[in-house]
Amino acid sequence: MTIAYQLTEAGTVLSRTTVERRPLGPRDVRLDLQFCGICHSDLVAASDKLGGGLYPMVPGHEMVGLVAEVGSEVHGVAVGAAMGVGCIADSCRSCAACGSGDEHYCETGFTLSFNSKDRAGRVNYGGYASDYVVDYEYLVPIPEGADLARMAPLLCGGITVYTPLKRFGVGPGTTLCVLGVGGLGHLAIQFASAMGARVLVASRSEAKRADAQRLGADVVLNPESDDLNDWMGQCDLIIDTISNPHDLNQWFPLLRRGGKLCLLGVPTEQLEIFPALIVFGDRSLEGSLIGGIADTREMIQFAHQNGLGAEIELIQPEEIEAAWHRLHTGDVQYRFVIDLASLS
Amino acid sequence: MTIAYQLTEAGTVLSRTTVERRPLGPRDVRLDLQFCGICHSDLVAASDKLGGGLYPMVPGHEMVGLVAEVGSEVHGVAVGAAMGVGCIADSCRSCAACGSGDEHYCETGFTLSFNSKDRAGRVNYGGYASDYVVDYEYLVPIPEGADLARMAPLLCGGITVYTPLKRFGVGPGTTLCVLGVGGLGHLAIQFASAMGARVLVASRSEAKRADAQRLGADVVLNPESDDLNDWMGQCDLIIDTISNPHDLNQWFPLLRRGGKLCLLGVPTEQLEIFPALIVFGDRSLEGSLIGGIADTREMIQFAHQNGLGAEIELIQPEEIEAAWHRLHTGDVQYRFVIDLASLS
Repeated sequence: MTIAYQLTEAGTVLSRTTVERRPLGPRDVRLDLQFCGICHSDLVAASDKLGGGLYPMVPGHEMVGLVAEVGSEVHGVAVGAAMGVGCIADSCRSCAACGSGDEHYCETGFTLSFNSKDRAGRVNYGGYASDYVVDYEYLVPIPEGADLARMAPLLCGGITVYTPLKRFGVGPGTTLCVLGVGGLGHLAIQFASAMGARVLVASRSEAKRADAQRLGADVVLNPESDDLNDWMGQCDLIIDTISNPHDLNQWFPLLRRGGKLCLLGVPTEQLEIFPALIVFGDRSLEGSLIGGIADTREMIQFAHQNGLGAEIELIQPEEIEAAWHRLHTGDVQYRFVIDLASLS
Repeated sequence: MTIAYQLTEAGTVLSRTTVERRPLGPRDVRLDLQFCGICHSDLVAASDKLGGGLYPMVPGHEMVGLVAEVGSEVHGVAVGAAMGVGCIADSCRSCAACGSGDEHYCETGFTLSFNSKDRAGRVNYGGYASDYVVDYEYLVPIPEGADLARMAPLLCGGITVYTPLKRFGVGPGTTLCVLGVGGLGHLAIQFASAMGARVLVASRSEAKRADAQRLGADVVLNPESDDLNDWMGQCDLIIDTISNPHDLNQWFPLLRRGGKLCLLGVPTEQLEIFPALIVFGDRSLEGSLIGGIADTREMIQFAHQNGLGAEIELIQPEEIEAAWHRLHTGDVQYRFVIDLASLS
């Protein structure tokens, strides 16, 4: 049996219980989980703000574990190896999206690693648990010597920032601005800086601006001062990681002609946009959603090679509820990670 | 002296008067104007809604005339030839934007054909007038045999729809949806259809849906019925020509993954967007602003070769004020064009 932290209904507290994983199939791997990151979308799913929540629910989709058991048809996965599982636990593997490495846009709907039904119709329980069972093709190998706890949040947070940086060709010569220095933002700064871009970071918090510099930002801007004036029309890309309602119109003028503002956070309220800022400036509003398995594997290698990882606060399973409350108020630098060793 | 229809201040009525054009320079051409289209942005400029209006103002930026006089350094422009002038009357010719044929994004600011100062600091009077003086490199040749009155609205309206259709690669295999069947929309339908795309048109008006079919639409949709349901996720591109405040969130679901909604109208109020529609659907909000001189010339050739033109209501100069009122309430099919012959 799997020890897990579960909500019985939307909005209830997490309680420690046991759940049953599916039996190990021939292509499955069972991981003894070591760490699981806490992502803002865990809270969204738990509150059922976007609807469609499946209860009882075990949250968690930023898992790192050690391979404990492998099915008979699994290739190249050694018992004891460190492996990650992100948001994607399965997909159809035959549609155009899956074929192009975009399993997260699978045309038949992909299986999330929690709050989702698998291909057999069983509800998937997530990574706030002692173990996890997943098809081996959806594993993300963690390089030897990596700090497993700091890698965990990359499985969702890291790929979320990596995908648009790759897609929009960020590298030497790119000027980009990161909005929000939080779970996603602090990773975007590190990745963009490692890619060779000039990284601007805007934050109202002096402490976060100082942190942004430590993380690799070249320029920090206080949007409540005149700081933005010098950078009008200078940015190729704005990576907007803010998940609360916020004013977009303030930021579009930073973009050069043809520049893109890419939403990574998903505020549940509507955002307002002045059409003139889009039309007259030849700018666009983009969005980006996590990323596929191949890109996630590439991202983890890139992070390891460049010494990147999440800045984390490690907690014990009985502290999850308190951590959720703190995350809800933005009180974390920058990601909570649950130490799951005590569960096994 | 030039006979012109002029506003003395923002919001005043147009009155017939005379104005002085700049003296013909060595690179200039003087056109005896034959027709000038009435564009919605004439009304915006006249009301000074976006600010920056220069008064007294002679509106008009969709001009077609016959060459009456050419400067000593003008090449390849024959007296008597039909020529158009659109929104762009001059630009710096040396910045990256001008170099790439995007004079409308000239980094030093381009000279509009009215409500703008020329390089010497003189206010430019527009095409509600008997003649116009412009640098010959900003002329748009009108093909022999073309209906000059039907060509006039293409100088702004035509290039406004042509630019995004070209930029987003519209052609056989493209499915696009045109929102709004008005001055811009009725041209977008014609151009996209001539390019070989499958053209959907959404309109609440039964009469406009019928017109859209006559103009080349393959499918017409009533957004107040269930019509949209069959087309969810099917469109590569939405061309949004609506200039009043409207709900964008209704339309994003029509786009396939990676699809683009491109604003051509510029509502002066803010538009609201649900971030989830952008992020989860991998869609983007784009804008497009008129187009450069080379593209405008290409568009006019394309229109002529394909027998396209604006559907117009021809009016006399003394009817401009009444036409403005009707345009303001959407009462025109689809463009007013002023017959200027009586002024010369």
